[in-house]
Amino acid sequence: MVTFTRERTENGVTERLFDLTVAGERVPAVIWSPEAGRGARPLVLMGHGGSQHKKIGTLAARARQYAQRLGYATLAIDAPGHGDRISREQAEKLAKEVGERVRGIGGTGGPSAELMKTMAERAQRAVPEWKAALDAAQELDFVGKSDAVGYWGVSMGTAIGVPFVASEPRIKCAVFGLAGLRAGATALEQAANAITIPVEFVFQWEDAVAPRETGIALFNAFASKEKTMHVNPGGHVEIPNFEGGSWLSFFARHLGMVKAHTPA
Amino acid sequence: MVTFTRERTENGVTERLFDLTVAGERVPAVIWSPEAGRGARPLVLMGHGGSQHKKIGTLAARARQYAQRLGYATLAIDAPGHGDRISREQAEKLAKEVGERVRGIGGTGGPSAELMKTMAERAQRAVPEWKAALDAAQELDFVGKSDAVGYWGVSMGTAIGVPFVASEPRIKCAVFGLAGLRAGATALEQAANAITIPVEFVFQWEDAVAPRETGIALFNAFASKEKTMHVNPGGHVEIPNFEGGSWLSFFARHLGMVKAHTPA
Repeated sequence: MVTFTRERTENGVTERLFDLTVAGERVPAVIWSPEAGRGARPLVLMGHGGSQHKKIGTLAARARQYAQRLGYATLAIDAPGHGDRISREQAEKLAKEVGERVRGIGGTGGPSAELMKTMAERAQRAVPEWKAALDAAQELDFVGKSDAVGYWGVSMGTAIGVPFVASEPRIKCAVFGLAGLRAGATALEQAANAITIPVEFVFQWEDAVAPRETGIALFNAFASKEKTMHVNPGGHVEIPNFEGGSWLSFFARHLGMVKAHTPA
Repeated sequence: MVTFTRERTENGVTERLFDLTVAGERVPAVIWSPEAGRGARPLVLMGHGGSQHKKIGTLAARARQYAQRLGYATLAIDAPGHGDRISREQAEKLAKEVGERVRGIGGTGGPSAELMKTMAERAQRAVPEWKAALDAAQELDFVGKSDAVGYWGVSMGTAIGVPFVASEPRIKCAVFGLAGLRAGATALEQAANAITIPVEFVFQWEDAVAPRETGIALFNAFASKEKTMHVNPGGHVEIPNFEGGSWLSFFARHLGMVKAHTPA
């Protein structure tokens, strides 16, 4: 049973905060949905990037757009070691570290063995948290057990999302990106091999975090019959705006729209 | 001054046939536009594929859709050695040859030196034909000299389109695809290097005609700041339907829509 800790409505979209407890730890969550919307509707789970949090601007803007234009609900949670799960000082330190990696400071040779281990552990912890969040969301009367559930997550949202989506049959389509498959990343490779749902994979051609060949390797590893890779020039944080339109079309194509929903 | 040889209207779209004479040779052309539409509007030039012709089903369907949904005019011409410029027997022989290449019969080692020479000559001949066709179209009262002109062409439509677009400043954005840059194709490489307009490049990952590395090489050769490559699984003739939606969005984004046009 979900208890909302805060609720506010703006431009026809209601944002509700709640907390989950998973393996004894608090996992803060947020869900956006059309104001006064009732009954089952498509749900998109959005995984934020490294050093970001569940309500980061670009993610929240997309959630509001999906509610307004498609009638969807969108769910986000703070990843392990992120958002409201760490102090402000820790968040600032993390932002600095991730910022340097994204700008290629410290070389583009890829993450250290220690960092890869941290990331793999984080992904492992996040999977049951996402499952618990999806369970909770599907109990809500304005979400329901619609089988139209999608996942969106790039960068760390892909590192966590690939193992999550591979093990979660309720997810029907996924947007991934800004991540690659390096030699030795066996768990990520096996998870990608287990994914058969439609995938849209966005990749930046000059990404200091994920070299071209690793991006192609991850795209190739998905077992999906329908998968599409969008390559654009530029660095890790330079996905062109028009990809946002493509993601919206992708979800609308696979999850449908809410009947009788009037786009704002 | 253009004289139409045939004209017919169906579902709100008028299709008009006309002939151009370029370098002493007849170049058959077709233009689709919204019924009773007058005044300047965006124009898309569509180059058909090898062994196809200016009114091939998929191309004509897209032209009608653009007229209905965006208010556009679409122009197509028969490429040298194609369509109404050859006999039915020649067309059947050509379709057989191209069909075998597309299915990888004869190996995927790439076209012979002779075939590459034929293709390069064809592209060279086609460039002034496209310029003459664009000149003629811009004299029409339902097209006008709008500076919103785009190009669409994959496979042979890219082999011809890249040199044409590189030399034609009236073209503001282009969709290319199903083609690659092979070692020694200097003219194609130089033309691609000269293209700076937004490009959407669609590529099939198991294309018997264009191996992956040649597709990536052609994408890399475009000098455009905005360029995006869409990679999908499958062979030369298996572009997924959803790419059609992406092309429509691409043109709408760069060429706009006709004001006061009511989508059908």
